[in-house]
Order: sequence, then structure tokens, then C-alpha cells
Amino acid sequence: MKNPNKPKLTLVGAGPGDVDLITLKGLNALRSADVVLYDALVNPALLEKVPATVPTYFVGKRKGQHSLTQEELNDLIIEVAFRYGHVVRLKGGDPFVFGRGFEEIQAAKVHAIETEYIPGISSAISVAGLEGIPVTHRGSSESFWVITGTNSSRQLSDDLRAAMHTHATIIILMGVAQLSKIVALYNQAGMEDTAIAVIQNGATAEKKLAIGTMQSILRTVDEKQVGSPGIIVIGETVRLHPDFLFQQAHVSALLTYAGNPCSETQ
Amino acid sequence: MKNPNKPKLTLVGAGPGDVDLITLKGLNALRSADVVLYDALVNPALLEKVPATVPTYFVGKRKGQHSLTQEELNDLIIEVAFRYGHVVRLKGGDPFVFGRGFEEIQAAKVHAIETEYIPGISSAISVAGLEGIPVTHRGSSESFWVITGTNSSRQLSDDLRAAMHTHATIIILMGVAQLSKIVALYNQAGMEDTAIAVIQNGATAEKKLAIGTMQSILRTVDEKQVGSPGIIVIGETVRLHPDFLFQQAHVSALLTYAGNPCSETQ
Repeated sequence: MKNPNKPKLTLVGAGPGDVDLITLKGLNALRSADVVLYDALVNPALLEKVPATVPTYFVGKRKGQHSLTQEELNDLIIEVAFRYGHVVRLKGGDPFVFGRGFEEIQAAKVHAIETEYIPGISSAISVAGLEGIPVTHRGSSESFWVITGTNSSRQLSDDLRAAMHTHATIIILMGVAQLSKIVALYNQAGMEDTAIAVIQNGATAEKKLAIGTMQSILRTVDEKQVGSPGIIVIGETVRLHPDFLFQQAHVSALLTYAGNPCSETQ
Repeated sequence: MKNPNKPKLTLVGAGPGDVDLITLKGLNALRSADVVLYDALVNPALLEKVPATVPTYFVGKRKGQHSLTQEELNDLIIEVAFRYGHVVRLKGGDPFVFGRGFEEIQAAKVHAIETEYIPGISSAISVAGLEGIPVTHRGSSESFWVITGTNSSRQLSDDLRAAMHTHATIIILMGVAQLSKIVALYNQAGMEDTAIAVIQNGATAEKKLAIGTMQSILRTVDEKQVGSPGIIVIGETVRLHPDFLFQQAHVSALLTYAGNPCSETQ
């Protein structure tokens, strides 16, 4: 039996978590899909937009279970494109921001499958903004630098060493597990007053925020139990957050009290 | 007469040009606005989503006309918030990416006006992607750096000098007028083979693309008459564009022909 639908691959950015942060174009693609392959960071409520007769497959990583390699996933995309027709590949954030989306486009092109990219709201920009931390602000930052915390060698990118000596706002994705290494890098460079925020599950009801400096952030993250998946924001614009001054005043008071119990300030 | 509507400011990112790249949340805000203030880079078709009875004001810059300063604009936002109620401030791309959006939030907060930020698809990520150039690609880049070509001193940001010596994909917004300076910076550093793309009016039907290296780009931009508003993309991922190899082969052939008419290769 010949498949009546023309094979096509559309990469759709699902945005950072809030269902309503998908684009109209992305929503239209979901409605015209013949099959949907979705990742772990996609809000499952988005799948309700897909017609009920259309198959949807989870292809992300789940703890303790075998997950597909990128090569296996590329093969699966080709297979379902020829079996069903229009494949919507729904990815968290934007498909080209550390999503390996371009590899999927390349794989499809080898098989002469038509491809389309529909951008999504990247958590790199939006998650900080939704917490009241702009990625740029006149007088505070003229650039922002988005880095992966886990590169192809599963290491923190060396690009951070260059970025930390600029005025850029630095946003690290998939880097919460590397937080102590990042903090050590700044402290070793004598930059312990640099402002930093860690945001878990941004743009969802379960979001958590820790904010402070390189001196305080590890303790705050520990106290508030902020973990993965999350983003890290470093730089002057973090100080624009209303919690920042409060936090700093609070920590100073605690340090004065704990470290100097007999001081005159008591 | 007392205004029956509660003052509120919602910053909405309109996305990079394509009307359908606005988010559902942004669209809902437009539909619930009591007044809309919009910028020059916003697609006018988006205003059709606003109820017909709701006033819309253009507050962007137009050549040869007086435009509002940021301070005047902040004052206008406060004024219309108290007069009409829900102000939707519609900005191209994302409101916190070089959009001075956070200054508008701060101004509103001083007057105890409720504020909300609805992210938009930033041209920084999407415009390159829509042209087939991913901002990140495994093996090519572990980070991307977004810089303004025109900082508060109307200069090219110094951050570019640090960025150019990393593996980051570099995206320069509002920098087309500085292109010759950027090219000179790379050429002086002996980096004339670095790949570069200039994209004007990305994500619209009027888009134009010039692609090449630091050696060829000024000529290509001139030939194709690529200008502002546009973005510049620099780095290894530019080489993933299908035109890149073709362009390089073509330029080499021309140079051989023009520069060495008696060579044996003819």
C-alpha cells in the first residue's frame, strides 16, 4: 500500500514550558501533522492540540530507561515520514538551540524529504525574562552569550572562560549539574561578587529560583533545592531582580551574626 | 470620569516579521488590549488582531521625522495606562533583546502599574535558522553570542573583540551599518576566512541574503544590495548553508579569471 501523504519533516519549537508560548505557526503544524515525535521537555498539554487520530510518540530521555541515540532518532524520523507523511518533530524551546535539530534536517534532506523549521521561544531568553531578569539592559549589558553546560564531550564549554571576562549576560543551558564547577571558575578568578541566578522549571507552575552571588549561590540552591532541568544566568542584569538586594542584605546580616558573634554591630 | 479599566502594561514580543510567529499568549494579549503602542519593526498585519474599537499608536522611528525619546515613550505608557487601562506594548522580536523593554517595565512599576512580559521569537535566533543556518550545531559551535551593533554610545560593542576568538556563533543585531568595521576587525586579526552571512528583512517575503567570508562579503552585500534592517551571523555554522560552498567556488573562479587572465588554469 502506497502512503498517500507526501513525506515532510517540520521541526517545531514548543517554547519553554507554558503551553500558550507556542507560536500560531507551530500550532498550525501540530494540527496538520500525520505523526508527532516529541521530547521530554515538551509540555504534554500541547499534544491535546494534535488531532486524536494522529499517532504521537515520546522519543526523549527518561531516567533509567533506554533512550534512542540521535542516529536511531534520525532513522525513525525517515521511517515515519515515509509511512505517515508529515512528521512534526516537537522540541522544547527552539529546535536549533542545542537541540540537535539541524542534524535531523540534514538526515531528512539526504532522503529528499522536504523540511521546515518553525522557531520556538527559547528558554535561553524567555526564562530569565519571565523571572524579571532581562537578558539585555541599557547600561548593564550590550550582549548575551548562551552556552551549553554539557557539550559533546559532556564537559562545560571552554567558551565560558572567554565569556566571563566580558560584559555579556551569560546564560548556561543544561548546566545545573556543573554549578559548583562554574562557581569555582569565577571564585578562582577573583570574581566572587558576580551575580548569578539558577531557575528550575522556568515558565511552569513548578518553577524555582535561587539568586545571589558566586559566594552565596551554592548554599541558596541547596536550601531551596533548585535542580535540573534549569538555566543559569550570570551578570549585571541579575541585580535588577527585586530579590537580589534583599537576598544580599539578608546574607550579609547572617554572615555578620555567624562569623563575628562579639562584634560591636550587635 | 474615572477610568473603569485597571492600568496594566503588557510587553508583547511580536516575533521577527512573519505574523504567524507571534505566540498564542501574545495574540490573547492583543485581543484583550485597551490600547496598543507598536514599533517600526512590527508587522502591521498583527494590528488586525486588535479589536476595531481599540486605539493603536505607532511609536517607532521613521526616517526624517521626530520620534519619541525613551523617556517620552515611558511617560506616554503611564499616561495611556491610566487613561485606557490595559496597554499592550508590541515590540519586534523579544522585548528584552535590545528593545529597552525593561526600562518600560521599570517606569510602570514606579507608578504601581501591574506589568507582564510575554516573550517573542527573537530575530537573533530565528532569522538565521529560517535561512538554513542553525545558531548551534554539534561539532561546529557550543555557544552563540548575540551582540548589538549599535550600543548606547552608538558604537560597535567591544564584546565583539572577545567573541571573535571563541567557537561561538556570533549574531550581531542592528549592525549592518557597521559591516565594514566588523570585516576590518577580522581581517586585521588574520581571520579573513571566517564565514559570514548578512540577512535583511528576515522572516518576511522581502528577505535578502548575502553569504561568504570576510574576504568576499562586502562585495556580495553590495552586489545584492543587502542593507538595514538586518542581522549578521558569523562562524562555522554559516558554512552549513547550501549556498556557501557554491558561493566560494564561484568567487574563486571569478578571482582566478579576473586576477590572472593568462594563468594555465584557463
